[in-house]
Amino acid sequence: MSTPDPNRVLIFDTTLRDGEQSPGCSMTQPEKLRVARALAELGVDVIEAGFPAASRGDWEAVNQVAREVRGPIIAGLARCNREDIDKAWSAVRDAARPRLHVFLATSAIHREHKLGMAKEQIIHTAVEGVRYARSLCADIEFSPEDASRTELEFLREVVEAVIEAGATTINVPDTVGYTVPEEFHEVFSFLKKNVKGADRVVFSVHCHNDLGMAVANSLAAVRAGARQVECTINGIGERAGNCSLEEIVMAMKTRESLFGFHTGIDTKRLFPTSRLLSSITGMAIPRNKAVVGENAFAHESGIHQHGMLKHHSTYEIMRPEDVGVSRTHLVLGKHSGRAALRDRIKELGFELTDAELARVFEDFKALADKKKELFDGDIEALVLRADFGASGPWHLEGLHAVSDSAGGAMARVKLRHSDGRTLEKETRGDGPVDAAFKAVEAVTGIDVKLRKFEVRSVSMGEDAQGEAVVTVEHNGRAYRGTSITTDIVESAVRAFLEVVNRIESMRATAARMARNPEAEAAVTAI
Amino acid sequence: MSTPDPNRVLIFDTTLRDGEQSPGCSMTQPEKLRVARALAELGVDVIEAGFPAASRGDWEAVNQVAREVRGPIIAGLARCNREDIDKAWSAVRDAARPRLHVFLATSAIHREHKLGMAKEQIIHTAVEGVRYARSLCADIEFSPEDASRTELEFLREVVEAVIEAGATTINVPDTVGYTVPEEFHEVFSFLKKNVKGADRVVFSVHCHNDLGMAVANSLAAVRAGARQVECTINGIGERAGNCSLEEIVMAMKTRESLFGFHTGIDTKRLFPTSRLLSSITGMAIPRNKAVVGENAFAHESGIHQHGMLKHHSTYEIMRPEDVGVSRTHLVLGKHSGRAALRDRIKELGFELTDAELARVFEDFKALADKKKELFDGDIEALVLRADFGASGPWHLEGLHAVSDSAGGAMARVKLRHSDGRTLEKETRGDGPVDAAFKAVEAVTGIDVKLRKFEVRSVSMGEDAQGEAVVTVEHNGRAYRGTSITTDIVESAVRAFLEVVNRIESMRATAARMARNPEAEAAVTAI
Repeated sequence: MSTPDPNRVLIFDTTLRDGEQSPGCSMTQPEKLRVARALAELGVDVIEAGFPAASRGDWEAVNQVAREVRGPIIAGLARCNREDIDKAWSAVRDAARPRLHVFLATSAIHREHKLGMAKEQIIHTAVEGVRYARSLCADIEFSPEDASRTELEFLREVVEAVIEAGATTINVPDTVGYTVPEEFHEVFSFLKKNVKGADRVVFSVHCHNDLGMAVANSLAAVRAGARQVECTINGIGERAGNCSLEEIVMAMKTRESLFGFHTGIDTKRLFPTSRLLSSITGMAIPRNKAVVGENAFAHESGIHQHGMLKHHSTYEIMRPEDVGVSRTHLVLGKHSGRAALRDRIKELGFELTDAELARVFEDFKALADKKKELFDGDIEALVLRADFGASGPWHLEGLHAVSDSAGGAMARVKLRHSDGRTLEKETRGDGPVDAAFKAVEAVTGIDVKLRKFEVRSVSMGEDAQGEAVVTVEHNGRAYRGTSITTDIVESAVRAFLEVVNRIESMRATAARMARNPEAEAAVTAI
Repeated sequence: MSTPDPNRVLIFDTTLRDGEQSPGCSMTQPEKLRVARALAELGVDVIEAGFPAASRGDWEAVNQVAREVRGPIIAGLARCNREDIDKAWSAVRDAARPRLHVFLATSAIHREHKLGMAKEQIIHTAVEGVRYARSLCADIEFSPEDASRTELEFLREVVEAVIEAGATTINVPDTVGYTVPEEFHEVFSFLKKNVKGADRVVFSVHCHNDLGMAVANSLAAVRAGARQVECTINGIGERAGNCSLEEIVMAMKTRESLFGFHTGIDTKRLFPTSRLLSSITGMAIPRNKAVVGENAFAHESGIHQHGMLKHHSTYEIMRPEDVGVSRTHLVLGKHSGRAALRDRIKELGFELTDAELARVFEDFKALADKKKELFDGDIEALVLRADFGASGPWHLEGLHAVSDSAGGAMARVKLRHSDGRTLEKETRGDGPVDAAFKAVEAVTGIDVKLRKFEVRSVSMGEDAQGEAVVTVEHNGRAYRGTSITTDIVESAVRAFLEVVNRIESMRATAARMARNPEAEAAVTAI
């Protein structure tokens, strides 16, 4: 594949694959679909929807994205063998524009320690895999894993062989986040110059941020001729994460007069998309995150700003509105109507169907009854949580929690099961949240280990809504629940209950969801 | 100043100046001193302790660091005028090795919009300022603000003139985070080659991360001859922050065979120093932060790891122990003695005096009574909070808070004032925390606006300690309080009370702390 415009850089988003497989970022199938839809609206060229061979659940998520999301190419990852390629193909074949992404490690350290294969075997296996994939699908991407630590001459051989075998995109990953801009520039320049068939393929760059240089390394590759950048929203991904989509896109846009590169991204959707992902994963956006962090725009950073700036341009290289951060903080209240809410939601960068709007409007009225002024953060929270909450058998009927500095803490929790039972337990604990969690465990009989608990306010005022994120371990797997209410104890209990419901749902589909640990192990990182 | 070893790169830490002035990162004087001591132990070459002309409080903090912290050079920032330079000099002159850091903007946009000065005036003012500073102090750094957007030939003229006037370090800042590695490499190469007197000074680089390239830009400058890097712990700083100290240091160390650069940093102290700053500012370290984030080391990232890696080296370019992340998670309990605690604290990278250890041990025994197993996170929290808590007039005597899904939330708070009064109030609210905050406000008569509220668990288990961070606005200024206990409602109230006590202390010293808004406005960023 190639683009007619020589300076157009394709954006390949791997939030749902490399991002999702990192600790703390796992998503359910409906969440993945929601992110994929947001990515399509953002204007990414390729969505890597997952690794279908990893588990039945992963396959289903990729397949659903392939069937339902239109616009971008939908890619599925596969190791270099027929079984993986078949699974990936069956998952993405329903896409309007499917892609198979086949990978095989090429560095000496991976050849020796991970694969136990000699150079010749690597080339043979890569060629066989690509040839087979190409027999199924016209759009084939190949990644020599750990390319940045691969001998340059061997890398050239592998790349040349897979192009000959039918690869249409060659991705060069810095799997361990080891390279520096000058070095990666040389790698791409060398390949562009010396690989036979280089002019028939798109070169792609895939960087990790272990030394803080993923964006600069990606840009260096583009300057040397790469025309696809693999990246993730908020830079999530294995270890220190992947190249941040919003940073590489805004770097190219801000310095377009220097480089001339451009993408198909609607930059006004960067901030809403970033917020959506943060809300789904529960990974807060760091305050000083470039482009989308709370402090990113000096004059937006609120009360602690030292003095007023005379001209924005003296300290500002991009405008907040260019990335979808609204300057206005119009306050809504209980007398605001549906039209005002719709306008505000639109200004915040979200598109809702009429049915979705109706649901959010209902929540909005309920919240406006409790809270005097509704800020942008409140509205955002209403939208983001609109289709949250795993449906499950347990519903919270009643909660009474007490924290007393003399008498300690207790909680009484009443839960209703969808089979009609209503159960109540009262327990003591080190705090009201601890006590309530124990009560939920006692009622449901589900025993978990709490790994992490976080609460943060999502807007301003003492009556601000609190978003609780609970992460627990159960039978060796991590589960996460989120909830937003104005009462943080209730919020915590609802998030915990979401976790319990997820575990129950997971049990129900245990057989169907049989995982493939070997496949999972193989794909820790590209 | 110059170093005999041509590949030794000086680390100039500006956590206390550029870092501290960013929203959410302000620190009290004791906190600044604590950070400065940690920086000295970390092995930084220069500590920029603050901007003495900004306020009396800033002057005092810089002066205390200059008097009490030995090892690194202590620098004070000053605008290019006698008043600022005098204030900075009086603050740092007691240091064993003082430095004055004088800055003046040089770019067309700053000359026109901020300063209203022609090129000749800029040069004249810079030379006068540097000459005067040099008459007081032998170690003078000069920064042409917004250098990356300054005409190269004019930049050369300014730099040449200030070297002639006595500057010993020339810092070239990318004030707006705009440049890219190739471009900054050219700027430094040009200056090194064309500036008369370039061989007599140390060139320094100061990068911001607005486009995600601060580390790569700094490294490019070093490759072109810079031998001082300005950076901050955790990359805090204006907008998207400054170059991260831990990232640039580990980039140089990890790729030492390629570049040959090295620093005086004890990398094993990177993680503890990062945690200390995070704990003091309340700015959580992002999970996927390079080098010091929870996910930075794949095999450390816990339960959600997909499979085991056969060899660490296949996916790991640095070892966790190299940056002070301990692999072991030895569990302590109520039967552990003082020696075991001391050993564990040492392994976690903290050095405590006997008196400090005694205090932490007391807290440890109290916590071990409540909590079955104590993890590294618990021990770290005990150490980090050991000298926290603004002392103030109000003390929490009693707290009773209730959250009820039917009846709503209430809280009764009893506070004792240091003048002997004991007051109690009961209030209702949208949640127990909201109710308790209102009760504290009612008792103390201090009315604040809640800006932000966060709670996160600092270790594992349902009885994990929760760290609460409360940020409020009062009379246009931001105040932050933190607290750690196993009961999140109590934690929130204690953090809120710390804020109230800070406000009371601030009132008491209001006259002494008279701020200089014009100076503050001038120094938003370098």
